[in-house]
Amino acid sequence: MSSVDKQLENLKAEITNELPRDISVSDVKYEGPELVVYTRDPKKFAKNGDLIRKLASKLRKRITVRPDPDVLSDPRDAEPQIMAVIPEEAGVTDLDFHIDTGEVVIEAQKPGMVIGRHGSTLREITQEVGWTPEVVRTPPIESSTVSNVRNFLKQEREDRRRILERTGRQIHREQLSNDEWVRITTLGCCREVGRASFILSTPETRILIDCGDKPGSDDVPYLQVPEALGSGANSLDAVVLTHAHLDHSALIPLLFKYGYDGPIYTTEPTRDLMGLLTLDYLDVASKEGRTPPYESEMVREAIKHTIPLEYGDVTDIAPDVKLTFHNAGHILGSSVSHFHIGDGLYNVAFSGDIHYDDTRLFNGAVNDFPRVETLVLESTYGGRNDYQTDQEDSEKRLIEVINETYDRGGKVVIPAFAVGRSQEIMLVLEQAMRDGKIPEMPVHLDGMIWEATAIHTTYPEYLRDELRDRIFHEDENPFLADEFNHIDGGEEERQDVADGDQAIILSTSGMVTGGPIMSWLRHIGPDPKSRLVFVGYQAQGTLGRRIQNGWDEIPVNDRDNSGRSSTLKLKMDVETVDGFSGHADRQGLENFIKTMNPRPEKVLCVHGDERSVQDLSSALYHNYNMRTFAPKNLETFRFK
Amino acid sequence: MSSVDKQLENLKAEITNELPRDISVSDVKYEGPELVVYTRDPKKFAKNGDLIRKLASKLRKRITVRPDPDVLSDPRDAEPQIMAVIPEEAGVTDLDFHIDTGEVVIEAQKPGMVIGRHGSTLREITQEVGWTPEVVRTPPIESSTVSNVRNFLKQEREDRRRILERTGRQIHREQLSNDEWVRITTLGCCREVGRASFILSTPETRILIDCGDKPGSDDVPYLQVPEALGSGANSLDAVVLTHAHLDHSALIPLLFKYGYDGPIYTTEPTRDLMGLLTLDYLDVASKEGRTPPYESEMVREAIKHTIPLEYGDVTDIAPDVKLTFHNAGHILGSSVSHFHIGDGLYNVAFSGDIHYDDTRLFNGAVNDFPRVETLVLESTYGGRNDYQTDQEDSEKRLIEVINETYDRGGKVVIPAFAVGRSQEIMLVLEQAMRDGKIPEMPVHLDGMIWEATAIHTTYPEYLRDELRDRIFHEDENPFLADEFNHIDGGEEERQDVADGDQAIILSTSGMVTGGPIMSWLRHIGPDPKSRLVFVGYQAQGTLGRRIQNGWDEIPVNDRDNSGRSSTLKLKMDVETVDGFSGHADRQGLENFIKTMNPRPEKVLCVHGDERSVQDLSSALYHNYNMRTFAPKNLETFRFK
Repeated sequence: MSSVDKQLENLKAEITNELPRDISVSDVKYEGPELVVYTRDPKKFAKNGDLIRKLASKLRKRITVRPDPDVLSDPRDAEPQIMAVIPEEAGVTDLDFHIDTGEVVIEAQKPGMVIGRHGSTLREITQEVGWTPEVVRTPPIESSTVSNVRNFLKQEREDRRRILERTGRQIHREQLSNDEWVRITTLGCCREVGRASFILSTPETRILIDCGDKPGSDDVPYLQVPEALGSGANSLDAVVLTHAHLDHSALIPLLFKYGYDGPIYTTEPTRDLMGLLTLDYLDVASKEGRTPPYESEMVREAIKHTIPLEYGDVTDIAPDVKLTFHNAGHILGSSVSHFHIGDGLYNVAFSGDIHYDDTRLFNGAVNDFPRVETLVLESTYGGRNDYQTDQEDSEKRLIEVINETYDRGGKVVIPAFAVGRSQEIMLVLEQAMRDGKIPEMPVHLDGMIWEATAIHTTYPEYLRDELRDRIFHEDENPFLADEFNHIDGGEEERQDVADGDQAIILSTSGMVTGGPIMSWLRHIGPDPKSRLVFVGYQAQGTLGRRIQNGWDEIPVNDRDNSGRSSTLKLKMDVETVDGFSGHADRQGLENFIKTMNPRPEKVLCVHGDERSVQDLSSALYHNYNMRTFAPKNLETFRFK
Repeated sequence: MSSVDKQLENLKAEITNELPRDISVSDVKYEGPELVVYTRDPKKFAKNGDLIRKLASKLRKRITVRPDPDVLSDPRDAEPQIMAVIPEEAGVTDLDFHIDTGEVVIEAQKPGMVIGRHGSTLREITQEVGWTPEVVRTPPIESSTVSNVRNFLKQEREDRRRILERTGRQIHREQLSNDEWVRITTLGCCREVGRASFILSTPETRILIDCGDKPGSDDVPYLQVPEALGSGANSLDAVVLTHAHLDHSALIPLLFKYGYDGPIYTTEPTRDLMGLLTLDYLDVASKEGRTPPYESEMVREAIKHTIPLEYGDVTDIAPDVKLTFHNAGHILGSSVSHFHIGDGLYNVAFSGDIHYDDTRLFNGAVNDFPRVETLVLESTYGGRNDYQTDQEDSEKRLIEVINETYDRGGKVVIPAFAVGRSQEIMLVLEQAMRDGKIPEMPVHLDGMIWEATAIHTTYPEYLRDELRDRIFHEDENPFLADEFNHIDGGEEERQDVADGDQAIILSTSGMVTGGPIMSWLRHIGPDPKSRLVFVGYQAQGTLGRRIQNGWDEIPVNDRDNSGRSSTLKLKMDVETVDGFSGHADRQGLENFIKTMNPRPEKVLCVHGDERSVQDLSSALYHNYNMRTFAPKNLETFRFK
């Protein structure tokens, strides 16, 4: 008998012993980080509300209880019983019964009402029908990404359960090494921005953190070196994804092409956004005539292998590693990833990308941990002069610009990243219109912005407290405001907008490197009354940066798709309004460290150009008396 | 056609073109780092003395010319012809004809006379008989190690040629990577003494440097991590061995158990000493009831895979790496290993163990290189107070101690390491007797000392200039002096010595951890007129250190081999005479750096305890303004 099976047998005996005599335990299994307890008495289990919590705390495991398939009532009988328990205002839109696990997935507009106070409604459902309810939110704005992911996971349920079981057994395997050490290997994003990728390793365990591309370059993380995938992709125990931006996620699906078959830990919104962005990444590559490094099939594999975690969940991901995600304030679902290694041996936090202050969309990044000895810190704006305008001032300036443009009868075109900055700007505009600071006018959303916004509204738990409360309690979802219009009618609709009255247009790509923004420039670019307003960072080498620098002749493809390029004379004003970045500026980074609890002993400054990481590393050393490093790619640091 | 075959075809054309019309080229092959040119006209080749040198410099390759097997004269005819060419004083002891390669190995007491001025005699031989002569020295003291190695290599010739051909093709493969970087990974001997092991890696190439054990511990280098052998032992291109001491060499044979099948680059004496010491390592392990990590078969594999290099030979060992060994002054054959990477990209030198000043045995370590950006420096005596007595003063003290003991009718017992320190002390004693500073008396050599000395006399080229010249030209080989007696009669002979007149005894082990020294303590320990003199470092935890600290009750096994221990009362005086170390002391290390040409930009201080590496690292940083590091094991540093 393997050590895991022995462990499960002992757990079964212990659980049986803990439970009242009339509750049977038919089987005990690991599924990913969860311990699944099968019972022939699910209703009795549910009656005793505290039982699972007590078991979990006693065994120090995450516990899920499932009914034995043969004690389940017929779904046709169960459905009306369930609907009778759930208040009508919950807005149930779908019920999906899974005979294999005894779970019923309830999709509802107000999941909170399905859950009930401390889960009371859920327990009531089980008491009535024996099935285990699981609740998901009906996206308030229809999202094809979310529904595709959900349908796909439904269809792959069996395969996924096999993956989870294997992962569970892997996580709970016996520790073999007597040695103790903790190491970080840098595979990318050191002294550069882009291709984020690290390996955290112990004698037992190897974890890959992020695997991104490098915008404006073909460089990818150093996956081929021996300490990365040189001994096979399955030498990794786990992959952790801090957030969905492509410079962190683009090459995650590639791992499955290389034969990786293990779990990806990330938040639920990051999973969905990763799906959206990596599929778009493949799409853009093929449109530009490049061969993408993997196929869309691999994106599906990545989604299938994802084990979503919520902020604050302490999760065993290896025999000697516990992972906890905390809000990073950068984009939807973005996480500071905290690793607790060994039994109190060492703690490492990877910041991912962070925003220290609250924004309209998100609470500021968490920097409070039980323990942390080493921090791997992003340094995008770590340079000595990388201070940004306060968002309040930026918002004022944006409102001024919009009003000026409106008054002279022009339109405002804002190139914006689909994920994050677009939604922040949407909130600014919605508020300004509601407060009467700018006139009411349509705000057209083009490219992936609408879809990305729909994903945001699916996961309000990940948004800033106030915003979440508005969506939850006051039914005032700002993203549903009337002024927002989804451009889904192609060139014809764009022409109509261009021919119409004043309006604001948010369109991808954020750095004017392609996408519908090119079309808007053709439509509105020649109009001297209109304005192009940059609200995000324009990287060296992008058309956005060139236009910022004064270029007014833009190469565009002919509309007749003949493939020849012609030149467009840009007559609209060009304006830049800084201060909407998703990254902490230099002050924010210092504040993150200054208020961090506890203060780490060592900081690795990464994810910034040479100057930024050196400046930040030196400043943190001098101001906060910590050991700081500005690693190169391909180095390995040992901490214990 | 593979790229290597294409390369060889081009080389053949180029060589044919360079040679006079009447010299044919029948084949061109790589064997290890050599380019072997087969010809049907070996005699004509030999006639034109400069031809090979010119070709080598033109092609920038090491070139060996071999006759086509079918043009060779019969060995029965060739032998007298060869003997007629070689002066009788050369003292030829063996001729060995190899039909497969057309080589004739000539073993002679005076190899120089077989070679002739600038190789003139060798060329004459080829002109006469067509065979290619290769010369080896007849050990002046019979060495079973040397003769075993030579016989073994003779017997494994065919297999060895296959290894060399494969290695040659591997070295000259096409470079595939466009990337450029140079990294060092530490697998052992960082912040500790023992288990030396590093990996030097580029995008093309991975080289293991040393692979030793850790005395007084079971710790071995971290071979199992992915960046070491995690992707298989054959992910290494080459193994380089700096010298034969077990803390650098003990686990080299283990690599072959792990499936390594590539070359080991080292000097010829290091190869032989490694054979001697690793076989003894296995022997000691099995005597102590431990299971050795590999079998003697693996030692033979290591010897078979060795490609010996001489000091100063610049050798291609990978498409992007050239290796050059330089004298390290530490023990016979010990090398500072210099790696030239890429086409002028970067240069790294590994000191191995060094002695900066000249000793009686060796010239001081070389610290003069065409280029070197990073130095990996041993730090055994790097601590701030690690200054040693000058050898001159030490010798005076040793002579005093011997004279005092002699005068009171006692014997001097010196525990000494078989390789290095024993021979140094032998030279001191021989000189002192010749100069009349101590009375003539027998010097008995016990344990492996005699055999190790025999290996020294086989390779006088590796000894200090003056010593080499004495052996070469004046026929005054000090190791052959009459006073030296090999203890080869076991306990009976030891008893005779103990019962006899004044004498000096040098015996292993050097730290009194076993071996014949235990027997000498039983024989002479109870004699208050005699003296035990320590001339080498006694590690913590060894019996030698305890005796130094005043212990005078020594556990010994009963002579009747009953296995029970009894206690021996030590009545002889105990004396320590420092200053004969094979390692540079703190001053020597600083001098090595101070006079180093060019001064490296970065120094990694390794091979010393925590305090020594930190002290040395900090001192070199402050005094010589270099970037210095005191790495931990399992770290990876990137230099380009």
